[in-house]
Amino acid sequence: METGRTGVGASLIALDWGTSSLRGFLMGGDGRVLDQRANAHGIQNLPMPGVAGFEQAFADLCGDWLTAHRGLPVVAGGMVGSAQGWREAPYVRCPADTTTLASQAIPVESASGSRILIAPGVLYDPPSGPPDILRGEEIQIAGVLADRPDWGRDACMVLPGTHSKWVEIVGGRMIRFSTYMTGETFAVLCKHSILGRLMPADAAPTEAESDAAFAEGVRAAQAGGPGDFTHQIFAARTLGITRRMPAELLKDYLSGLLIGHELVSGLGHMRNELHEGRPLLLIGEGALCRRYVRGLELLGVEPTDRLENTAPRGLFQFAVAAGLIAPAGE
Amino acid sequence: METGRTGVGASLIALDWGTSSLRGFLMGGDGRVLDQRANAHGIQNLPMPGVAGFEQAFADLCGDWLTAHRGLPVVAGGMVGSAQGWREAPYVRCPADTTTLASQAIPVESASGSRILIAPGVLYDPPSGPPDILRGEEIQIAGVLADRPDWGRDACMVLPGTHSKWVEIVGGRMIRFSTYMTGETFAVLCKHSILGRLMPADAAPTEAESDAAFAEGVRAAQAGGPGDFTHQIFAARTLGITRRMPAELLKDYLSGLLIGHELVSGLGHMRNELHEGRPLLLIGEGALCRRYVRGLELLGVEPTDRLENTAPRGLFQFAVAAGLIAPAGE
Repeated sequence: METGRTGVGASLIALDWGTSSLRGFLMGGDGRVLDQRANAHGIQNLPMPGVAGFEQAFADLCGDWLTAHRGLPVVAGGMVGSAQGWREAPYVRCPADTTTLASQAIPVESASGSRILIAPGVLYDPPSGPPDILRGEEIQIAGVLADRPDWGRDACMVLPGTHSKWVEIVGGRMIRFSTYMTGETFAVLCKHSILGRLMPADAAPTEAESDAAFAEGVRAAQAGGPGDFTHQIFAARTLGITRRMPAELLKDYLSGLLIGHELVSGLGHMRNELHEGRPLLLIGEGALCRRYVRGLELLGVEPTDRLENTAPRGLFQFAVAAGLIAPAGE
Repeated sequence: METGRTGVGASLIALDWGTSSLRGFLMGGDGRVLDQRANAHGIQNLPMPGVAGFEQAFADLCGDWLTAHRGLPVVAGGMVGSAQGWREAPYVRCPADTTTLASQAIPVESASGSRILIAPGVLYDPPSGPPDILRGEEIQIAGVLADRPDWGRDACMVLPGTHSKWVEIVGGRMIRFSTYMTGETFAVLCKHSILGRLMPADAAPTEAESDAAFAEGVRAAQAGGPGDFTHQIFAARTLGITRRMPAELLKDYLSGLLIGHELVSGLGHMRNELHEGRPLLLIGEGALCRRYVRGLELLGVEPTDRLENTAPRGLFQFAVAAGLIAPAGE
C-alpha cells in the first residue's frame, strides 16, 4: 500500500492551499478521494509566521497520512505558490494547459522529508490593456477537463467567488481570462461603506423575497451603461432611505447588482464564442453558483452545466502530468 | 449691529453641518463672510450623543457670536437635517430651487434660545429606476446660482466628493441628478480590499508620475464597457504584481479608473445637454476638482468653470428665501 500506483491504494496527497483555508486529499491511484480534511491554516492564517508555519500546517493536516504511506508524492495548488506562499511558483503564460503547469511547477522539500510539487499560477497578457492573473483556478479547470474532455475542445468557464474568473478554453488550453472582484467588492461595500449601515445584521428574508430583490438588482445592472457602477450601487441606500425596499432586502439587491454587472460584462466579452454554441460552465460552491445561474436566467442565458469541487481531480491530473503517478485506470 | 440688515453688520449665522465636520459663518447683510470657524463635530462625531450633542457643538462654535449679536437668525444645511441629524428636514422633490428649500425648511429651537432653520435635502425620482437623494449640495448650488444667475438658466453642475453629484439645472431649478459613490468606493477599496495591500503607505511619487498613472486609469475607464468595473479595478493589483507599474503609483491609477468611470457615465447621461452648449461647472475642493478637470481633458471635454466653497453664499440665499434677512444690497 505504501506507494500503490494502481487500484484503490493511496497514491497521492493533494493540497488545495488557499488564502484562508487548507484542504488536503488522500487520493487513490484511480483518482478517487480516499480521505479528506480541511483546516483554517490558509497562507494568511498560518499557526506561526514564515516557513515554519507552512511546515507546521502541513504536518498537522497530513502527518498521519505520511506515516501510514511513506514516500507518497505530494502536490499543492493555490496561493501556497504565490510570492507570500511557501515557495513562489511564478506565473506561466496563456495559452496554458495541465502539461504547462506541470513543466513549470516548483518543488519544495519539507522538514518531514516529503517533496511537495507546487503548481504555478497563470498570466494572461491581452493584446491591449493590463495583464490578468489567476492562481488556484487553473487546478479546478484541470479537474473539469480531466472528467469531461469533451468540454476541453472549447468552452467558457465561469468560476464565481471573491475574485471570479471567466476563462476561455480552446483545444484543452486556457487561452484568455478575466478576473472580476465581485465577491470582495460586495463584502467591503457591505462591511465598510455607508451601504452597510442600512442593512440589518439579523436580516432573514424569505427565499422568494430574497430572490425578488436579487432579480431587481440584476435587472438594474442590465439597464446600466458604461461607468454606471458607482452610481447604481447608491440605490442600495436610496431604496432603503425612501422605504421603497425593506432594509432586510438591500443586501440581496446589492448582490444582484454586483453579480449582474459581472454577468453583463462577462457575457459581452464572450458574446461571439457563446453565439457559436460553446458550452458555458459554472464551477464552484453550490449556493453561489445557483445565484449565478439565476442571474444568467434573468439575462436569457442557460449555462450548460454546473460543477462543484473539481480541485482534487485537477491536482491528480497535475500529478499525472508531472510524472509523479500513473494516469487513472492504467 | 445686533440684527444689522444692511452693510457690513452681522446679519446671519450660517452652519454647514455635515457628517464629519461643522463649519460656521458669521455673515454680513451684504452676503459676505465676516468671520468663520470649523470643528470636527460632524453629526457622526458629536461631543455627546443625542440632542445634547448638537446643542453642545452649536454652543461651542457659535456661543460668543450669539452673545455679541443677540437675536441673529441662524440657518443650517447638510446632514444636520437627515434622519440622524438634530431634526429631520424631509427631502423635497425635483424640480426644486432655493424657494422650494425655504418653504419646506424645518425649524429647531435650541436651548440657547436661538431658532435654527434647517434646509431639507432633495429627492429625484426618475421615470424608471431607483430614486436618488442629496443633502448639502443643494446649498452649494444655491450659492452658485446666487453669484452667477446667468448659469441658472441651464447648466450641468458636478460636485466631486465622497458621493459625487451630477446635477442638471433648468430655469434656476434642479430638475434631475445622479449620485456616484466614487470617493467612498475608492477609500474602501484602498483601505479594506486586496488592492490596498500593494500600495505603500509612504508613497511619494512626483507630480508627473502621479498624473501619468491617473491618466492611464482614466483611459482604461474610457475603453471599458457595461459592467466592466469590478474587472478593471483588478488591474490595480495585476499591474503591481507583474511590476509593470511601480507600487507607489497604483493608487493614482485606481483613482483615475474610478473618476474615469464616473466621468464616462456622467458625460454620457448629460450628452444631449452638453451638446447643446450648456455650461459644465465643477464645484468643490480645489485639488479634487483639478483631478476632475484633468480627467475631463483626457476625455476631450473642457469645463466652463470651477468654483470652491459656495456653501456660505448658498446658506445666505436660503435665509433670504426664508424671509429671515433682506436680499444682499437692498
